[in-house]
Amino acid sequence: MTDLPVFGAGIWHFATYKDRYATDGYGPPVGLLEQIDRAGAVGDLSVVDLNWPFAGFDGTLDDVKAALSRNGLEAIAITPEIYTRDFVKGSFTHPDPAVRKRALDLMHHATDVAKDLGSSYVKLWPGQDGWDYPFQVNYHDIWQLALDGLRELCAAHPEINFVIEYKPREPRVKIIFPNVARTLLGIEKIGLPNLGILLDFGHSLYGLETPADAAQLAIDYGRLFAIDVNDNLRGWDDDMVVGSVHLVETFEFFHTLRKNNWQGVWQLDQFPFREDSVEAARQAIRFLKAVHRALDSLDDSALAAAQADHDALAAQRLVQRALLTSMADTEDT
Amino acid sequence: MTDLPVFGAGIWHFATYKDRYATDGYGPPVGLLEQIDRAGAVGDLSVVDLNWPFAGFDGTLDDVKAALSRNGLEAIAITPEIYTRDFVKGSFTHPDPAVRKRALDLMHHATDVAKDLGSSYVKLWPGQDGWDYPFQVNYHDIWQLALDGLRELCAAHPEINFVIEYKPREPRVKIIFPNVARTLLGIEKIGLPNLGILLDFGHSLYGLETPADAAQLAIDYGRLFAIDVNDNLRGWDDDMVVGSVHLVETFEFFHTLRKNNWQGVWQLDQFPFREDSVEAARQAIRFLKAVHRALDSLDDSALAAAQADHDALAAQRLVQRALLTSMADTEDT
Amino acid sequence: MTDLPVFGAGIWHFATYKDRYATDGYGPPVGLLEQIDRAGAVGDLSVVDLNWPFAGFDGTLDDVKAALSRNGLEAIAITPEIYTRDFVKGSFTHPDPAVRKRALDLMHHATDVAKDLGSSYVKLWPGQDGWDYPFQVNYHDIWQLALDGLRELCAAHPEINFVIEYKPREPRVKIIFPNVARTLLGIEKIGLPNLGILLDFGHSLYGLETPADAAQLAIDYGRLFAIDVNDNLRGWDDDMVVGSVHLVETFEFFHTLRKNNWQGVWQLDQFPFREDSVEAARQAIRFLKAVHRALDSLDDSALAAAQADHDALAAQRLVQRALLTSMADTEDT
Amino acid sequence: MTDLPVFGAGIWHFATYKDRYATDGYGPPVGLLEQIDRAGAVGDLSVVDLNWPFAGFDGTLDDVKAALSRNGLEAIAITPEIYTRDFVKGSFTHPDPAVRKRALDLMHHATDVAKDLGSSYVKLWPGQDGWDYPFQVNYHDIWQLALDGLRELCAAHPEINFVIEYKPREPRVKIIFPNVARTLLGIEKIGLPNLGILLDFGHSLYGLETPADAAQLAIDYGRLFAIDVNDNLRGWDDDMVVGSVHLVETFEFFHTLRKNNWQGVWQLDQFPFREDSVEAARQAIRFLKAVHRALDSLDDSALAAAQADHDALAAQRLVQRALLTSMADTEDT
Repeated sequence: MTDLPVFGAGIWHFATYKDRYATDGYGPPVGLLEQIDRAGAVGDLSVVDLNWPFAGFDGTLDDVKAALSRNGLEAIAITPEIYTRDFVKGSFTHPDPAVRKRALDLMHHATDVAKDLGSSYVKLWPGQDGWDYPFQVNYHDIWQLALDGLRELCAAHPEINFVIEYKPREPRVKIIFPNVARTLLGIEKIGLPNLGILLDFGHSLYGLETPADAAQLAIDYGRLFAIDVNDNLRGWDDDMVVGSVHLVETFEFFHTLRKNNWQGVWQLDQFPFREDSVEAARQAIRFLKAVHRALDSLDDSALAAAQADHDALAAQRLVQRALLTSMADTEDT
Repeated sequence: MTDLPVFGAGIWHFATYKDRYATDGYGPPVGLLEQIDRAGAVGDLSVVDLNWPFAGFDGTLDDVKAALSRNGLEAIAITPEIYTRDFVKGSFTHPDPAVRKRALDLMHHATDVAKDLGSSYVKLWPGQDGWDYPFQVNYHDIWQLALDGLRELCAAHPEINFVIEYKPREPRVKIIFPNVARTLLGIEKIGLPNLGILLDFGHSLYGLETPADAAQLAIDYGRLFAIDVNDNLRGWDDDMVVGSVHLVETFEFFHTLRKNNWQGVWQLDQFPFREDSVEAARQAIRFLKAVHRALDSLDDSALAAAQADHDALAAQRLVQRALLTSMADTEDT
Repeated sequence: MTDLPVFGAGIWHFATYKDRYATDGYGPPVGLLEQIDRAGAVGDLSVVDLNWPFAGFDGTLDDVKAALSRNGLEAIAITPEIYTRDFVKGSFTHPDPAVRKRALDLMHHATDVAKDLGSSYVKLWPGQDGWDYPFQVNYHDIWQLALDGLRELCAAHPEINFVIEYKPREPRVKIIFPNVARTLLGIEKIGLPNLGILLDFGHSLYGLETPADAAQLAIDYGRLFAIDVNDNLRGWDDDMVVGSVHLVETFEFFHTLRKNNWQGVWQLDQFPFREDSVEAARQAIRFLKAVHRALDSLDDSALAAAQADHDALAAQRLVQRALLTSMADTEDT
Repeated sequence: MTDLPVFGAGIWHFATYKDRYATDGYGPPVGLLEQIDRAGAVGDLSVVDLNWPFAGFDGTLDDVKAALSRNGLEAIAITPEIYTRDFVKGSFTHPDPAVRKRALDLMHHATDVAKDLGSSYVKLWPGQDGWDYPFQVNYHDIWQLALDGLRELCAAHPEINFVIEYKPREPRVKIIFPNVARTLLGIEKIGLPNLGILLDFGHSLYGLETPADAAQLAIDYGRLFAIDVNDNLRGWDDDMVVGSVHLVETFEFFHTLRKNNWQGVWQLDQFPFREDSVEAARQAIRFLKAVHRALDSLDDSALAAAQADHDALAAQRLVQRALLTSMADTEDT
């Protein structure tokens, strides 16, 4: 059996949530250090992605480092919060230049924190950059603003990577980086080596893509810097536990990564609104280990032959043979 | 010109919102009395639907009555908050009988408030009643729980009406009353005269229904007690300003109501996350008045003849003639 | 291990197809008797559902019986073709009464054929009954026409069953029986014992239902007369091979049937446009046998306990343990 | 009032159709010359797009020219039929190199016909190039095949333009050029000046794009060579009559074209399955003329100011003022 991958998670996985109805939250607030301890309690996680500023946290960065350290965790990434109240009309593309500057300042500071923590990348998720209504914006102008802002940020920090996490919608009705191809167009136009993509499996799925195809394209452009996994019903970013619905496409996604010898963290971006967050992560990893075993047992050359013929039935047979035996002979279930 | 309809709105239209990303809110909190004043400032609203308990409000019911009165508003409905933290795993269908009882207690109390305010109905929106994952619940059992709870509640208050506002999803991935037909099945099974439907145009639209057809069906069963309008992109409950996208289907919806001589409030359920809430209501009503004028000018008998032939082109021509002239010769634009 | 279910298929599974682009067909035409021989070649099929009139076939009913017999097949159902050129504007709901009569005549004749063949039911799929455009039809009127026609047909043949196969859309943009609840409403209104539902898993899935919930509801009304399975991407009736995408929800669907002790045929409604049709059926049945084994190994009481708590994670763990071992220790892969 | 645009249509608009159910067709076959005569009968069409080979037509190219001429029509484009039986597993990306060559031969010949007819471009719609099932193809390989084939074709005919009409799906479950950004990525990689995009409004809409934004992007890359319009319900390529549902977004689409001074044909790609095809075209053009008038009356500078503020409400008010008066004071209704 091949070595297990490194597992990670967004630290928000271990928070509690609000939405527009349960404005009092799906549970009592969980502080940052407690979130880190919960991540540590999962037992298989090595890295976490941290939002910044640390909301509701009045300790020091050293406190955070200590909490990570005692849980055997590293901060693989920092995610600047460019989607909270100040930025609900956009960050890179906000109509007010003063707010755009404030957003960029926040991102510069977050980048400094990332460097301090030794993170691999800064994750940019411009979820409020877009539009809601027909005729609301000038599409040419906001696209230029997005590219200009990204270029300035990435050029200022050549020693660290940045990733764009594209998403079709939510919270904006339409987000400016909705899919892999549009994001690659922007990245190619910017032309800097330290800007890539974080591909969220669920975003790809409900954005009408085939996640494995999106991953292959990003890899072919040398821009697949990171991934997140979760699941949904193809209509919304439900952020369900990975493997709860789309077993075959999750398997295909990781098969594509392995075939390309992609080395990166298998990272969770789940929102267990009503579940125990530690157990939700464990269930996800239990499934991901089954995927890993299935990758080991899959007959790659037979599959390649089937694919050369576009033979869907032969491919399915091979895939089911690997996947539907992946929890036999293991203690992991 | 026929008389204008009565216009109304959910009071939340005039609040500010949170979601899972902008957890600090899309703006500073707006208190209940200020929400009522904003509703009054619209100028065309006669009634509002009030959530209960009055979140974050420490005044008395008399304060609320006074605020309504000074704005020329009446409380057409009370909406008990059966979707906040206590009930994120369900109200009628919560797995814990003690929580189900607490939810019903809340609904009984809300009903008493509704009677006190002289409201027409209590609105039940069981948005947390449903499931997220395959295999999570026993479908037979939770459906029975929902019907049992509704029967108990409605039977206890025969002197006031109750409405179920059905919705396909959000916040649950699947909600137990997702569409008009399922809701009617439940209502017929319960068999009480004071339980009907509030048909939200947007819920119907993104639930794959044709809203006018859903309205006709509810009317034919004598169960269309109330309506809400808004708009979306057919994939989610965007709660956009009415008339921003689906002009024709909104027109058809109101045409169906008029044809059946349905007398009820034209009520707004919009979430103007990033807009001025008073202006958002005014824009909606400006459009609804155009719809009302278009209904007056539509050639009903020619349309009936076209529909008898299923002649889509003739019908469209008549509809466009009415709708695309509806803002000519008016000061309302 | 429990006994295997009876497997069946729509005979069209073994035809070739046309669509609006490949008007010359996805392969050379396959005659009816050859379709039956292909069904026989699958090796696990016991019953087929036959379209009638037998398109392009100039033999006798005895020829058909002989072909079925030599392949060990029975005609479980007859599906009258109420969706071809004569009926593209509707069958039960066609605007012209003469065409409505012609459609009913066709259905009566098809029923006679079904009786002659000893079939269990006549399947009604009113795919052309509905509308395409806003304002095209009077919704009240066409719903009444549909119920009137069904009542007349079913009342005339009390000794045989009829099923409505509901579907959200295609070929009409909206079909008059789009989901399980609307269909049950109609059936209850008609009030005859010999009219039920054929639940097509894929139709339910892309119609925003949870197929297991839809099945439970139909069972609770005593109306689940038959089922079809296939798969799709939740946006359209792709009629892909069962188990190619939605393994978990297919498993849940059959779990619901077994829990209710539903005894019926596991029937394929697949359109293998570009695949060998015999192999496509074999692949489907290979997966369905794995589902059957997984049902045997599933810990039902532990699952019931998890569901009583709405514990999605515990349920998933049990489900994956059964499903992801279902092809171990078998020659079926 | 500004000059009217040039109107055009795909010649298939005037054919009759088949689908997988009504395999005998939605009406009697209509020959090519009769289709051309019907296009002429519309009265406002100047150009048509012709499929090639001319299916079921045994006349000469001169016969076609004569029919066009007597109807005052020109062939703006030729669409090679790379999606019929020979190519149901792909044209550019077919697994068999011999079939790929046959497809390219067909495209070369179609290009010669286009030159002979003086057409502006050859339209490539690779609707069978893609995949249906997870794991069916090697995504890297088929993308390369598509680019290689396109490069060879376009390089061989530098004196004429080619356009790719992208589409998310149908008839393949996933098509290799699904959206504007992916198509632009491919075009940029190929790097030839005579390859651009035909943007079909409906494809963009049900592909989760905002059509006006997609148009702006293609224009910014200098690649918007042609457009088609129609309408749908955002879930499928319904090819309904333009303006039957999405009035505002159609208006926004043409507003974007005008703002960029895009000069091209307003072309119909509708499938009036159950409607009179001449009347369907007339109804579309009636609406498009209203759009044209609304563009003339729209307050562009006020709209630009609203868009600079992302002020959706102000923009809507301006848009409705123009659109909802666009059929007043005209004989066109």
